[in-house]
Amino acid sequence: MTRIITLLSDFGTADGYVGEMKGVLAANAPDCALIDIAHDVAPHDVEAGRLALARYWHRFPVGTVHLAVVDPGVGSSRSALAMESEGRFLVGPDNGILSPAMLHPGARCVALAIPAAAAPTFHGRDVFAPAAAKLAQGVALDALGTVCTDPIVRRTPEATRRTDGAIVGTIITVDRFGNLVTNLVARHGGTLELAGRSLPVRRTYGDVATGEVVALVGSSGLVEIAVRDGSATEELGAKRGDSVVLRVS
Amino acid sequence: MTRIITLLSDFGTADGYVGEMKGVLAANAPDCALIDIAHDVAPHDVEAGRLALARYWHRFPVGTVHLAVVDPGVGSSRSALAMESEGRFLVGPDNGILSPAMLHPGARCVALAIPAAAAPTFHGRDVFAPAAAKLAQGVALDALGTVCTDPIVRRTPEATRRTDGAIVGTIITVDRFGNLVTNLVARHGGTLELAGRSLPVRRTYGDVATGEVVALVGSSGLVEIAVRDGSATEELGAKRGDSVVLRVS
Amino acid sequence: MTRIITLLSDFGTADGYVGEMKGVLAANAPDCALIDIAHDVAPHDVEAGRLALARYWHRFPVGTVHLAVVDPGVGSSRSALAMESEGRFLVGPDNGILSPAMLHPGARCVALAIPAAAAPTFHGRDVFAPAAAKLAQGVALDALGTVCTDPIVRRTPEATRRTDGAIVGTIITVDRFGNLVTNLVARHGGTLELAGRSLPVRRTYGDVATGEVVALVGSSGLVEIAVRDGSATEELGAKRGDSVVLRVS
Repeated sequence: MTRIITLLSDFGTADGYVGEMKGVLAANAPDCALIDIAHDVAPHDVEAGRLALARYWHRFPVGTVHLAVVDPGVGSSRSALAMESEGRFLVGPDNGILSPAMLHPGARCVALAIPAAAAPTFHGRDVFAPAAAKLAQGVALDALGTVCTDPIVRRTPEATRRTDGAIVGTIITVDRFGNLVTNLVARHGGTLELAGRSLPVRRTYGDVATGEVVALVGSSGLVEIAVRDGSATEELGAKRGDSVVLRVS
Repeated sequence: MTRIITLLSDFGTADGYVGEMKGVLAANAPDCALIDIAHDVAPHDVEAGRLALARYWHRFPVGTVHLAVVDPGVGSSRSALAMESEGRFLVGPDNGILSPAMLHPGARCVALAIPAAAAPTFHGRDVFAPAAAKLAQGVALDALGTVCTDPIVRRTPEATRRTDGAIVGTIITVDRFGNLVTNLVARHGGTLELAGRSLPVRRTYGDVATGEVVALVGSSGLVEIAVRDGSATEELGAKRGDSVVLRVS
Repeated sequence: MTRIITLLSDFGTADGYVGEMKGVLAANAPDCALIDIAHDVAPHDVEAGRLALARYWHRFPVGTVHLAVVDPGVGSSRSALAMESEGRFLVGPDNGILSPAMLHPGARCVALAIPAAAAPTFHGRDVFAPAAAKLAQGVALDALGTVCTDPIVRRTPEATRRTDGAIVGTIITVDRFGNLVTNLVARHGGTLELAGRSLPVRRTYGDVATGEVVALVGSSGLVEIAVRDGSATEELGAKRGDSVVLRVS
């Protein structure tokens, strides 16, 4: 079976940085399949990268190598990591972006050696891509670096707060459709409060009329607020970081 | 020969939704080649998806599976479709996006079963991608659902109107270059009227000087209006839905 | 080993033009791997395409075919080129975009025949993609056209000027992060002057505090100006074409 290497970054594509990484991968891991996840993560937005990675990393087959480079600390003393979790491999900076895979029992992590010739502003090309290529070629994780026991890890959902019958959460991301995704795990039936509105948690966008606001349990199991055929972020003026309250009925 | 699965959507890439679909495809159709068409179709713009699909679906080799998910009605009662046309397979919602392939004689279409566990907001991941993977693996179309005899179908060119020596058409899309693409099928030689201008239909952008407006027959056989090295939509203030008149000489 | 065809263009993806090119490639070069570089080069920005190509073309393995289509002169009398350099093949318009590969000794170039049926507005689909597919299938370069001895060639760095102890250069591109990339080749130790500031050339972004301006030698060996965790183009109001002065210590 062809080994897969996926790519996630905040590099955009027009400048050719991703092209350079792909060249390194193609040269060092011939016959691997390169699959783009995204390169339009907002610049330096590690948290957005982490949330995207949480969605896809475990859906790929065992043996897949995930390269994830949103790396504002490149060239500083932050570690460069490679890891294995649930049979998949991941490579990226030690800033929390790999957390979704770190949180699984049995995850193993190494700190990559930084070659002296690596450009201090582009570890994606000179450190992470070569490591990903090696993993895709079957090199053992332990051969790539020294064991790292204290990588930076962040969790979703984080920071929800219970308060007499309600749960206070946060909008953790706004997607391309303007849907407001919260950190609240819910079953259908509760009521969400946001910006003076009280919204029963429904099943899907089509449960309300065009232009109406709807709360529902999204495809990752988190409560989100949408406007049917519209944009909730524009309609409600709500954004990442805003608080929401869920009353479970 | 490696089976190809192409992907078209309005999901953007940064949120990781496309990553999830690719994970499902890679896990269920190993050794297939995934080829991105676009994920930046304007949100909910089924018509733009249909026009893009019209351009590429038949150019891929026989056996290719085209996944096309612009799906504002996800989770409602709209059907989920898989189909075969001219030896290619297509999968997507029943909202007209697959029309270009539907219009060919011999096209066959089935309505996919919706698994109870499918997220009502993300059939791309839970319904369409699994079906595309099965088709790429050689599962027969008829094994995926029940025959659908009345899918939604739209046509291009639509709604042109003949009126003493002239044809009245519409701007159906504006491309990335700001070119105004109409629904008028034409031979070189006519004259296009738009926004008070009368433009002879020419051969290519280079037939006029930089900054000048030109009408020509575009690469899909439809008349379009461009500004050489510029943007016709900005220069003329014209947009999708505006009327144009073609006088054939 | 699977032959690779990479794609660079200014077509965007939503309109389906890239989909058409990929269909032609997949149909004519089955079992080749298509790798996207970028399709969001600014419309008609040949120079941006050239700078991106300079980054990646040589990093791919020998035998790779690079398709690069930023082509404002399509359909005019400009030549359509295919070439070989350092064992890689490149295909694109004769407007300088292929310069980085042209500049290597031993580069060979042919002018492609334009089929009568080629759409004069879309050589990417009808001229360049078919030629790229042929090269990927092993057809000899010389079989694709007639030798071209005077292709358009541009250089980086260009137009730097020495003036008593200093070198005057130019900002040649602004990347997605807002970093200002100059045409100055430098070693660490000099001082860069821009917009009334005097900046020592440092090693990486992390060498200054968040929000501060830093000059450094970027990953392609050229001096660039960045703002740590910010955008230098926004912070400094500097843009492509602006002059910079480097004083070497």
